[in-house]
Order: sequence, then C-alpha cells, then structure tokens
Amino acid sequence: MESHFVRGEHTMRVPMSLFADNRKRLIDRLRTKLPRATEPGSVVLLKGGDEVSLYCTDVSWPFKQESFFQWCFGVEEPECYGALDLASGKSILFFPRHPAEYATWMGRLCPLEEFRQRYQVDETYHVDELERVLSSKGTKKLLLLRGVNSDSGLTTQPATFDGIDKFQTDFDILYPEFCECRVIKSPKEIEVLRYVVKVSSDAHKAVMRMVKPGVAEFQAEAQFLHHAYAVGGCRHVSYTCICGSGENGSILHYGHAGAPNNKVLKDGDMCLFDMGGNYAGYAADITCSFPANGKFTEDQKIVYDAVLDARNAVLQAAKPGVLWSDMHLLANRVMLEALKKADLLQGDVEDMIRAGVHAVFQPHGLGHFLGLDVHDVGGYLPGYPERSAEPGLSKLRTARPLKAGMVLTVEPGCYFIDWLLQKAKADPAQAKFINWANIERFRGFGGVRIEDDVLITETGMENLTDVPRTVEEIEEWMSYKRAEIKLPQELKHLPL
Amino acid sequence: MESHFVRGEHTMRVPMSLFADNRKRLIDRLRTKLPRATEPGSVVLLKGGDEVSLYCTDVSWPFKQESFFQWCFGVEEPECYGALDLASGKSILFFPRHPAEYATWMGRLCPLEEFRQRYQVDETYHVDELERVLSSKGTKKLLLLRGVNSDSGLTTQPATFDGIDKFQTDFDILYPEFCECRVIKSPKEIEVLRYVVKVSSDAHKAVMRMVKPGVAEFQAEAQFLHHAYAVGGCRHVSYTCICGSGENGSILHYGHAGAPNNKVLKDGDMCLFDMGGNYAGYAADITCSFPANGKFTEDQKIVYDAVLDARNAVLQAAKPGVLWSDMHLLANRVMLEALKKADLLQGDVEDMIRAGVHAVFQPHGLGHFLGLDVHDVGGYLPGYPERSAEPGLSKLRTARPLKAGMVLTVEPGCYFIDWLLQKAKADPAQAKFINWANIERFRGFGGVRIEDDVLITETGMENLTDVPRTVEEIEEWMSYKRAEIKLPQELKHLPL
Repeated sequence: MESHFVRGEHTMRVPMSLFADNRKRLIDRLRTKLPRATEPGSVVLLKGGDEVSLYCTDVSWPFKQESFFQWCFGVEEPECYGALDLASGKSILFFPRHPAEYATWMGRLCPLEEFRQRYQVDETYHVDELERVLSSKGTKKLLLLRGVNSDSGLTTQPATFDGIDKFQTDFDILYPEFCECRVIKSPKEIEVLRYVVKVSSDAHKAVMRMVKPGVAEFQAEAQFLHHAYAVGGCRHVSYTCICGSGENGSILHYGHAGAPNNKVLKDGDMCLFDMGGNYAGYAADITCSFPANGKFTEDQKIVYDAVLDARNAVLQAAKPGVLWSDMHLLANRVMLEALKKADLLQGDVEDMIRAGVHAVFQPHGLGHFLGLDVHDVGGYLPGYPERSAEPGLSKLRTARPLKAGMVLTVEPGCYFIDWLLQKAKADPAQAKFINWANIERFRGFGGVRIEDDVLITETGMENLTDVPRTVEEIEEWMSYKRAEIKLPQELKHLPL
Repeated sequence: MESHFVRGEHTMRVPMSLFADNRKRLIDRLRTKLPRATEPGSVVLLKGGDEVSLYCTDVSWPFKQESFFQWCFGVEEPECYGALDLASGKSILFFPRHPAEYATWMGRLCPLEEFRQRYQVDETYHVDELERVLSSKGTKKLLLLRGVNSDSGLTTQPATFDGIDKFQTDFDILYPEFCECRVIKSPKEIEVLRYVVKVSSDAHKAVMRMVKPGVAEFQAEAQFLHHAYAVGGCRHVSYTCICGSGENGSILHYGHAGAPNNKVLKDGDMCLFDMGGNYAGYAADITCSFPANGKFTEDQKIVYDAVLDARNAVLQAAKPGVLWSDMHLLANRVMLEALKKADLLQGDVEDMIRAGVHAVFQPHGLGHFLGLDVHDVGGYLPGYPERSAEPGLSKLRTARPLKAGMVLTVEPGCYFIDWLLQKAKADPAQAKFINWANIERFRGFGGVRIEDDVLITETGMENLTDVPRTVEEIEEWMSYKRAEIKLPQELKHLPL
C-alpha cells in the first residue's frame, strides 16, 4: 500500500514513490556513468541530518532534513543513514536505536517494519548495525557524498560510522551525478513544487489584502507564515522572510536578525516581500512588490513596469537550449530600455551594459534553480559554463542552457541602493548614462522585485506562480478585504 | 537618551538599561567574590552567537543570540564580542567589520558610534581590534565562560580570538557566578517576563477559541505562533510547540520532527498544548489542557482536577526558603490523593511514593527556572542541593530553596503512558497501588499538564500566567467565538 507525507487531512498527499523514483534515477545514472557499477559491491551511503543544539542549551533548532537525504528517502526523523545497492537497486534505511524511555518523552518506539512500510524501502535496520549489514551484503566500495556547494562554498559532510575503514571509499563520483539528478525534476517532484508554490502564492495574496499603512513589516511576515502553515501545512519557510517597505526594499537580504522586518509601513511606501513556504522539503521562492496603500504612484508605476517588462521578456524567451546567462542579460536590457524611456537613463543600452550600469540597478542574478534547497544545487557542475566575472553575471547562480524539467526562479529587480548610486556617480564611465536630476526622486524609494517560480517545458516554460502581477491586477486585488479570499471548502470553518 | 528593543510600535519597549543593570550585577558579584578584581587588569570576555548554516547550503537558521551574551548586552546582531572591565566597570562591544557590499545585501553599515548609543555601552570597536583594544586597556587576565549546562550536559564554548595567548586566562571563576546572577531576575527582567508570559497567555486563549474537532494539531500551533508574533512581536518561540491531542498528550516532548503535531483533533480528545513565545530573548513556557470540544467528560474532570489540585497546592506553598524538591513531592502527593479518591489508586500515598508510583503518572519534574533559556541555568550550582537519584525527583531541573526574584514554571501533570503502566503492572511493588479495572478506561486518554510561570516574591509567589484554569473557566472561555477576543486598541484594524 502506498504511504504518504501529508499534514493533517487537508494538505497535499505526497506519495513515498516520489522518493523511490528519485532513488531509481540516481541508481540508473550511476550505472551508466560507472561501467562496473552493476557488478556487486558498490553502495551509495548517505547520512541524514542531525538535531542541532542551540548553543549549550537542551533546546534544538526545529529539525529540517538534509536535502540529499530527503531527495532519496523523504525521512522525517533525524540521525538516520540510507544505503543504495547499485547492483541490486535495493534501498536500506538505518534508524537510531532508542532506549525504552524514548516512549515517555518522544513517542512510541516505531518498529523497523513499520518504518520500512512507511518509507517504502526494501530493508530497515538500526544505525548500530551499519557495518554488519553492509558487510553481509558483500559491500566492497562505499560511494560517499563530498562536494562544494557553489552558492555557499561549503563542503558536504560525507557519511561516516564506526567500522567504515573496513570498506573502500570513493568521495568523488557521487556528488556531481547526484546534483545533476536534482537539477531535473521528476513529474512527482513537479507536483509538489506546484503545490508549495500555489500555497505560497495564496499566502502572498492573503498578505496583500491585510497590509496597509500602520501595519508593521513583521505582521505581514506573521500573516504569511500563518497562512502557509495553517492552510498549506508548511511548517517551515525555505528562507527567512524578507518584508522590506520603503527604503528597506533596496536591501536584498533584508529580514535577518540585524534588520528583522521591524519598520511600520508608511503611506507612499512600496513593499517588497520575498517569502516562500516549504512542503515535504520542497521550496517556494516568490517575491511580490506593491504599494503599501494599494495604489501605485506614477513613479512607482515606472519602476514596477520596467521590472515587469523584464520579467515578461524572460517568460516569453525561456525554453530548452537557451542560456540562462543570456536570459539574465535580456532582462537587464529590457529593464534599462524602460528606465531610459522614463528618462532615468540616457545613451545606448548596450554601452550601459558594457559599463556595468545594469548591475547598479540589479546587483543580483536573474534567478536560480529551485528544489529542496531554495538555491538548489547543480548551478556550476563540471562540463557546464563557468561562473562569469562580469558585473551582475558574476552573481548568477547558474549559467547553464535550459532543459525541460528544470525549475528556476525568474526574479528581475530594480533597486535604488545609495552606496551603489554614489559609486556610479563617482565613476565617469557609469555616471554619464544616469539622469541624475531624475534619479534623485527615487532616493529612499527602495526597490521592486518580481519573482516567479517557473518550470521549463519541452517548448517553453510554465509559470507555477499565481499572484496578481500587473499594476491593474494588484490594485484590483488589494481593493478587496482579506475576508473575501476564497478558502478551500474544508477550511471554511477555520478562523484563518 | 534611552534606547529600546521594540517590535514595530505596539509591543513592549524594553529599555537597554535592563542589560546595563545586568552587567552591573555581574560586576558587583565578581568584585565581592574575587578580592583582587578591583585592581586593574581583569576583564570578562564573552562571545556572542554566530549564524549557523543549514548543512552545506547558503541558508542559515534564523539567528538567535546566545543567552549569556544576550543577558549582558541585548545585542541583536551575530558574531560580536563583549568585554566588561572589572576595575572600571566599563563595557565594550566589538562588532564584525563588514565589506562595502554588505550594504547591498544586508543593509546600511551601522557606524560604531550608532551601535554604542543603541546598546548603551561605553565603547564600541570592530572584532579585528580585540587584541589591540584589550592590550591598550592594560588587560592582564581574561575571565572566560566555561561550564556544563545541567540540563543538556553540554559545555559552553569560551570566547577565543587571534592573540588571546597574549593574556592570562581563567575558565573557572566566571560560570557559576554568572549563572547565579541569571537565577535571580531584576525588576526590569521581571517586566519583560511578565510581558512575554501575558502575550503567550493571550495566544493560548486565542488557540482555545479556535480549536474544535476537525482542526489539526499543527493548525493550533500556527494560531499560537501567529498571535505571539503579530500581536506580541515574538519572532521566535522558546521551544518547539507541543500540541498533543488524545493519546499524543502523553508524549512529554511531542511536536518534534518525528511527531510533528500532525493529528486531527477528535471529538472526546483532551488537548495538551505546551507553547511559549520569546521576546527580547526572554522565554515563556505555558501549558493548557482542555477538551477539544470545549466540554469536559466526567473522566476528564477527574484527571484535570487532580492536576489542578496539585498546582494549587504548590502555588499556595511556594515562598522563599521552601525547597523546590519538597514542592515536587507536595504536588505528587496531592495528585495521588485525588486519584485515590477517584478510585484509580488505592493504599497509602506515602507508600505509593516510596514505591515510585508518582513517577509512573508524572515522570517529569515539577518545574524549572525560566529566563533567557526556557530551562534556565543555575539549577545545580556548587553549594546547592545536588540532583536526586529518586524516581521523578531525578528529573527535577533544580532542587534549590526558593528565593525572591526566581522565576519558575509550576507544571504538574498526569499521564497515561502505555509502557510505564505496563512496567508498573509487572512490578508487584507498584501494581498493588493501582486499581487496574478503572485505569483501563484511561488507556489512550493522553494526559493533562497545567503549567504556570511564577515569580517568587518576598512573601510567596505571583502567578504571571493569565489563562482560564478551572473546568468552569475553560468551558466558559471556549463557549465563545474567537472573534470576541479583546485586542489592544492599536491592533483592532488587523485581521488577526
């Protein structure tokens, strides 16, 4: 019988076969890449995530599963191991052995057979049986996960255990192949991403109907978190909510502990809210930009529409074979053209890009892979274009040609960042493109970002995001009261 | 001018002088304990918390400040150091030096003088100036924080930095004196605790009005989190929310990743919801137990009233000088008497306690210190009673005599835990006290816990918690719709 990940009874039922399919993809790929993988003895061994203590206290961070392990097994518990036998294709999970007292504090000791059925693997054991079980299967070589994450620069920690020295180990083969599998989403993964993006879209829409001058940024954050959890079952978000209003909209990673969404929205502010839920490990990453009072000023329309034009151009052009770095430059080009038309910039747009003016207004990349990590792995694998050193492009998290099954964010933005404007003003090569008299009006404006989550299809792309995007749609949506949001029938009784 | 910690404009304004007062208390205590501390050269050096990466990704856990550092400085930013000069009493903060690009991603580079005014310390520098500044002050000996947390068994990480070998170091003096300071709350700390306990009480009350059969446990969690954050400004909770219904109420630390508040409430279930917000670092820790449908059955009343009697007895008896371990036994005794009166137990209550029957029904301690940590430090310091080896008492997080200014939880509970009941049944010394025919009715009942946060005063105690507690109060409160909760005037416009 199929088992599922589901929260309560009203959220998406994620079949455990999603993870079985993932395992099969990884095994198949390793078999084609390693001619001798089908001979008995090669086993992929992964370590799941551990609880992390908050300093020296007895409180831990709320556990989140490590993403490579999640992709293979979908296991909710900490401190597990998983093994894939390349020859037989069999999968084994190892769970920690808990003392009887566990039942008092943490809950019933789940029998191994129950774990086996729940996670639909072939066999289950305790972690302290790792060496014995691997030996009994004739394991010769362990393929372990070691590689550098191209966004963080951090190295994954390969699995280790007492007795690992009895086996040969390989730390190089697994990482790039595993990342490549994660880059292309399966139909079942796409359904989960579709769900979490829809839930997060709805949560953004709920926020848009509750904001008004006088509301604090963190109250918008609280509203998002509540909707994503209570309605969508998203216990976690994929990253700290960015709820910038007014000038804070120009701080790309606003919302962190030193800038904790603490300003009160003012009449005339633009809001830039970047928030995404997480369901069954899969991330959404959506940004909505809109006026705090629900009505755009003419200046707000200029900036918003410049970004919207850039976003629309990318959504139209994205399809298999197209280079992501070209999409980045396309977005920049369209945005600069629009800012030029509005008399904020002057001169030739190609010349502006050569001078790096695009990166003054959008210092970040156009978008990134999205999956179990919000900045998903696989951006700069061997055999694909390397990271550029050019302004703007250097921040792009991948430069790869697009391929059906990729899921990416498309997130052009336009910001008025004081120190970058100062720097541009002091640099004659850039300063000449900027109409400084008009730009002054936008000091303190903050910024606009429009971020959609899209799936690359065989012929183009599908936008999974469902929020009001044009000026008219936003003003129309915000003119209604929040109570008029349509909830699924089964949630009607809840005071959300 | 006094500066404050505040969220938006509607939450408590915590004066930075709270932390200055704390520093003064620590310095005064060290001066009396260390005869030569007033001679120049002795400096307390503390390291603030760091961002913690989520595995190898570029996402971090939402930062929470380390509690000893928070107690001294109230600093919201990660990666800082703080120093207290024992002779002069001066305080110095060291902030990380960020590159210009920080302004694009994280926000304006805050000048050191602005940090100085905001945190109201004497001097501010960058972290890379630590050695130079300490040397220039004539520092000879650094007092560093190393000690074992009696709840987690983990050892604090003392501050270290490049160049620390130029100074003498002492790792022993600071920890017990610092913990002792944290045990006794100052008037300003008490005001913050009063606030966060009130906010958390209100959030529990909001939850009680939204639950009903059909609601999922995690939806109650979502409601609590939302109320605590949007109304109270509590971005964090002090521990993972425990929202057990039915049998889950008997799992003491339910709600973790392996048991994530995922059941749907059923008609006839008891709910045991243990949740507390965190404001300016200070924790609340409150448990409410009530029927999912708002009306107690006769059996639910028996268990609830037994626990309520125990709680009332402790609230009446708690005062300076009383041993906390005696309060634990008092609560157990009262509860067992009530269960005996209801024919669930039989025989002499003192004999039951000698046989360990109290720990079958309440396997945890009566309560613990509460402060910046939910299980606050100082439970088993040198010179105070040591941890008992007796059933139940061995789980008590302190056995100290009470003292005015202590804040503790009072949390008696009664649970029907399958494996503990099985064990008792198999043990003739315990089995004879239990009326098995009647106990059978309570299999699957779950449990009841009543947890208040109380301040020990000169003459007794003050209960900071404000939730419905008697059967009548709970039924009355739950009979109203949630919309009728009274919100502060300034929040009336928000759709909470």
